Amino acid sequence: MGGQDREHDAGASYRYQAMTRELIARIEAGHYAEGERLPSVRALMRAHQVSMTTASRVLVELESQGYAFSRERSGFFVQPRPPRTGTTPTTPTPTRTARPAVVSMNALVASLFRAQAGEGQLSLGAAELAAELLPTRALTQAMIKVARASGAEGILYGPAGGEPALRHQIARWMGTRGVVVAPEEVWITEGESGAMGAALRALTRPGDLVAVESPTYFGLLRWIEALGLQAVEIATDPRLGVDVEELERVLETLPVAVIAVNPVFHNPFGGTVPPERMQALIRLAARHRVPVIEDDVYGALSFDSHGVAPLRAHDEAGGVLYCSSFSKTVAPGYRVGWCLPGRWAERLALFPFGGAVLPQRALAVFLAGRAHARHLEGLRALFAGQASRIRALVLEAFPEGTRISDPRGGYVFWVEGPASFDALGFHARARAHGIGIAPGPLFSPTGRFANAFRLSVGRPLTPGVEEAIRTLGRLARGGD
Amino acid sequence: MGGQDREHDAGASYRYQAMTRELIARIEAGHYAEGERLPSVRALMRAHQVSMTTASRVLVELESQGYAFSRERSGFFVQPRPPRTGTTPTTPTPTRTARPAVVSMNALVASLFRAQAGEGQLSLGAAELAAELLPTRALTQAMIKVARASGAEGILYGPAGGEPALRHQIARWMGTRGVVVAPEEVWITEGESGAMGAALRALTRPGDLVAVESPTYFGLLRWIEALGLQAVEIATDPRLGVDVEELERVLETLPVAVIAVNPVFHNPFGGTVPPERMQALIRLAARHRVPVIEDDVYGALSFDSHGVAPLRAHDEAGGVLYCSSFSKTVAPGYRVGWCLPGRWAERLALFPFGGAVLPQRALAVFLAGRAHARHLEGLRALFAGQASRIRALVLEAFPEGTRISDPRGGYVFWVEGPASFDALGFHARARAHGIGIAPGPLFSPTGRFANAFRLSVGRPLTPGVEEAIRTLGRLARGGD
Repeated sequence: MGGQDREHDAGASYRYQAMTRELIARIEAGHYAEGERLPSVRALMRAHQVSMTTASRVLVELESQGYAFSRERSGFFVQPRPPRTGTTPTTPTPTRTARPAVVSMNALVASLFRAQAGEGQLSLGAAELAAELLPTRALTQAMIKVARASGAEGILYGPAGGEPALRHQIARWMGTRGVVVAPEEVWITEGESGAMGAALRALTRPGDLVAVESPTYFGLLRWIEALGLQAVEIATDPRLGVDVEELERVLETLPVAVIAVNPVFHNPFGGTVPPERMQALIRLAARHRVPVIEDDVYGALSFDSHGVAPLRAHDEAGGVLYCSSFSKTVAPGYRVGWCLPGRWAERLALFPFGGAVLPQRALAVFLAGRAHARHLEGLRALFAGQASRIRALVLEAFPEGTRISDPRGGYVFWVEGPASFDALGFHARARAHGIGIAPGPLFSPTGRFANAFRLSVGRPLTPGVEEAIRTLGRLARGGD
Repeated sequence: MGGQDREHDAGASYRYQAMTRELIARIEAGHYAEGERLPSVRALMRAHQVSMTTASRVLVELESQGYAFSRERSGFFVQPRPPRTGTTPTTPTPTRTARPAVVSMNALVASLFRAQAGEGQLSLGAAELAAELLPTRALTQAMIKVARASGAEGILYGPAGGEPALRHQIARWMGTRGVVVAPEEVWITEGESGAMGAALRALTRPGDLVAVESPTYFGLLRWIEALGLQAVEIATDPRLGVDVEELERVLETLPVAVIAVNPVFHNPFGGTVPPERMQALIRLAARHRVPVIEDDVYGALSFDSHGVAPLRAHDEAGGVLYCSSFSKTVAPGYRVGWCLPGRWAERLALFPFGGAVLPQRALAVFLAGRAHARHLEGLRALFAGQASRIRALVLEAFPEGTRISDPRGGYVFWVEGPASFDALGFHARARAHGIGIAPGPLFSPTGRFANAFRLSVGRPLTPGVEEAIRTLGRLARGGD
C-alpha cells in the first residue's frame, strides 16, 4: 500500500486520540453530567468531519476507559462510577500489509490444541460448560422419551435437512432473536463445526481467500486449512468488531471469496458489535458482493436480559449465511448445530450433512417446553454476575500492564499481557500446574497474539477457580 | 499413451479370450470332472506365460459363465450345475487415456441424488436397511440404559477419538475380521462419510489426485469435490476389483496422492476381491509409496459364514487407512463410523472429528453382548438367501442383453442394460412409478455408466418388492 493510506490512517489515529482527550476533558470538567447522553456517532461525524469508524472508536474508548456506558439503540451515556483504567485489550493495529496466508497450524499449535483435551485438568482453556451447568435431568428425560417413542425411526437415516420437529423449534427460537425463518430454511448440522464446514464448502473453492477476524476462533482456522483455503486477517476491535475500513481496503485489493465473523459475544473477546457497525459490515459486503458467514454460537448467552440480535437480523438482502449450535449452551455431546443457508441451500445440499437422529429429537422436546428459556436465564444470570469479579481477579493477580476484555455475553475472556509476556511458555507452565488456557497464537493464522490468551470460565466461580486464576497470575509474574 | 500399450493390451485380451475358450472346451470335454480343482493362478501364469491379471481373469470368467466356482484360499473348481450365461456385468475397458478429472457433480446428478431422499417411494436406490431389519429393541434398550447411567457425561463433549467403551468393542470386532488393533488405534467418526472425509483430509491437499474405482461410491466423489481434489478412474472388475495393471500405468504416469478402494462387497458391484489381488494392490501401492484408503462399510455382511478379511488384514507395512461404519448394518441414524488411521493419526487429529456421545455408548452396549453377532447372522442369511432370486427376477424381467452382478455380501446389485439403455431416463420413469434406483452416472466422476444402475435391496424380498422389480423390467423394456 502507498504512502497516502499511511498518512490517512495516521491522521485518523491522531484525530481519534484528540477527540477522545477532548471528550474526557469535557466529562471531567462536568460539561456532561453523570448519566447524561453523549453525542451520537452521527453527531460526532458531522461535528468533527470524521468517519463512522473514528467516531465509534472515540465513544467506545470512553466506555473502555470507564467514562461512558452504552445502552442498546440509545447511545452512550456518562458513566457515574469512578473511571477504571487500562483494562480492555488494545485494538490490533490494522494490518496495512494485509496479505493472504495459507493456513497451516504448525505442530506446536496443534499439540497445544490437543493438550487441551487432556484430563485431570482444571480447564480454563476449552470453551465448555461445566457438567453442573447442563440441563442433564430434562435432557435425559427427553432422550428416554424419544428413544422409546421413535422405535426404528430413531435408528434409520433421518430426513435430509434434519428432524422436522427440531427445525420447527429452531425457527421459533430464531424468531426470538429477531430472525424470521421458516422451519424448512433451517438446516441441521453436526455441531457448530459441521455448520461452519458446510458453509465454507458451499461458498468457496480450494485456494479461495477468506477474510477472518483477528483474533478469530481456531475451529474456523482448522476448516480453512482442511479445505485448502487461504485467510486474510482483518484487525478486530473487542467492542466494535471487524475494522470495516480495513476490510474495505482489503476487499478493494484482494479477491476475497467470503468474510467470516462472530459479531455477537465474540470468541475470544466476548464483546458484541453495535447494530450500526453490523449494518455497515452488511452494506460493505453487499457492495462488493461478498457473502458473510456469521458464527453465532454464543448468541443465546447475553448478559443483558433482552438479548442481542445477530448480524443475520440486519440482513435484508440475503448476504449472510448464519451458523449456530447447542454446543455452548445446552448439550455439547449431542453434536447438534444448524445453519440458515438462505440462497445457498442448493449448494449446501451437495455435501454430506446431518447428525444423529435421537439427539435431534431429544433437543426438539427440550426446546418445546419452558426448560430451555429457564436454563438460558440461569446461565445468563450466572455469567453476567461473575464477569466483573473474574476481570477484577485477573487484573489483581496478573502483572502490571495486563488487560482483559469486557464481555457482554458468553463465558470467554481475552487477556493481553505486557508486550514481553510469552503466552506459549505460560501455557506450558499453567499445564504443569493442572490448569488449561488457550494461548493467543491459536487464534491467528499467522501466529499473532504471542502475548495474549483466552480464559474460558463456563463454570461457577468457586473458590477453586478463583485460586486457579490467582495461580495463573503468580505464574505470569514469573513465580512457580 | 502410445501404440505399444495398445498392442500389449490387445495381446493380453486375445490371450485371455483364447485361454478361456480353451478351458471351457476342456471342461465341456470332461477333461476336468465336476467339482475337480482347476489350475491355480500361478499354474496358469507359468503354463501360458501370462500375467496374474490375465490368469485371474480367465478363472473368474469361467466362474462368471457358470463353469467354475471358487473356495476361499483353495482356488477354483468345476461347477456341477449347468452353466448360466451372460449374467455378470462386463468389465469396463481399461481407460488407456486415463486422465485426471476435476470432480463436479452436475446439477442433474445432484438433483438425482436429492430425489432419492424423496418420501412415499419404494426405495431400491439408497443403500439402506429397511426398518424391520434393524435391531430396534436391543438398541432402544441400550440407549435408555446409557442415557440413564451417563447423566451429564452423555451431554458433555466426549473424549477425543471417541468413547473408550466403543473403541474397545470395535477393536474386538476388527479382530474377528483378521485385523489386530488396540482400542486407541480406533478413531470414532461421524458415520462412514465422516471417516472418508477425515481420511481424505489427512492424506491429501487440494488439487491432489485420487485414484478411484470405476464405478465407485458417489459419497466418495462428493468428498473429492468438496475438498477440491481430482479423480482418475481405474477400470474395476466386479470380481477382481481394481485393474492392478492399469493402476500401475497410472501410478507411473500421474502424481496420484491416494488410492481409494472398496474391495470387500464393493459398492455398487457387491463382489469381493480375491486375497491374492488384494496383496498385489498393496504391493503396488507400497512400491509407489501411495497410501490406500479402504472403505469396508459392507464388510460385515458376507454371504459366506466365515466372512472375508478386508484389505487392511493383508497390510503389513501400514499402507492402508481403513474406514467403516455401523450405518449399513446396525444403526444408520446413529451416525457412528470409525477409521484405523495408523501412521496418519497425527494428521487426523488436526481436523474436526467425533460424533454424538450417547449413540456411541449405546452401540458399545449393543456390541458387548451377543445381539450384534445374532443380528449380523440374520442379515447375512437373509441377503445370501435372496440374492440369486433377485438376480433371476432381474434377468427375467429386463430386456435381452441385461447383465447383473453376482454379490458375495451386502445388498447392492449392479445392473447393466444393453448399450442403448438410458439409465437417467429410466430413473425418471421409475420415480414416476414410485420406485427409486441409483442411476449409473452417479458412480463416476465423468458420468460413465449411462446404461447401468444400482439396485439396493436392503429389505426382505416381499411380493411387493418382486412386483417393483418386475415393474422396473417392464419400464426398461419400454412399457409404462
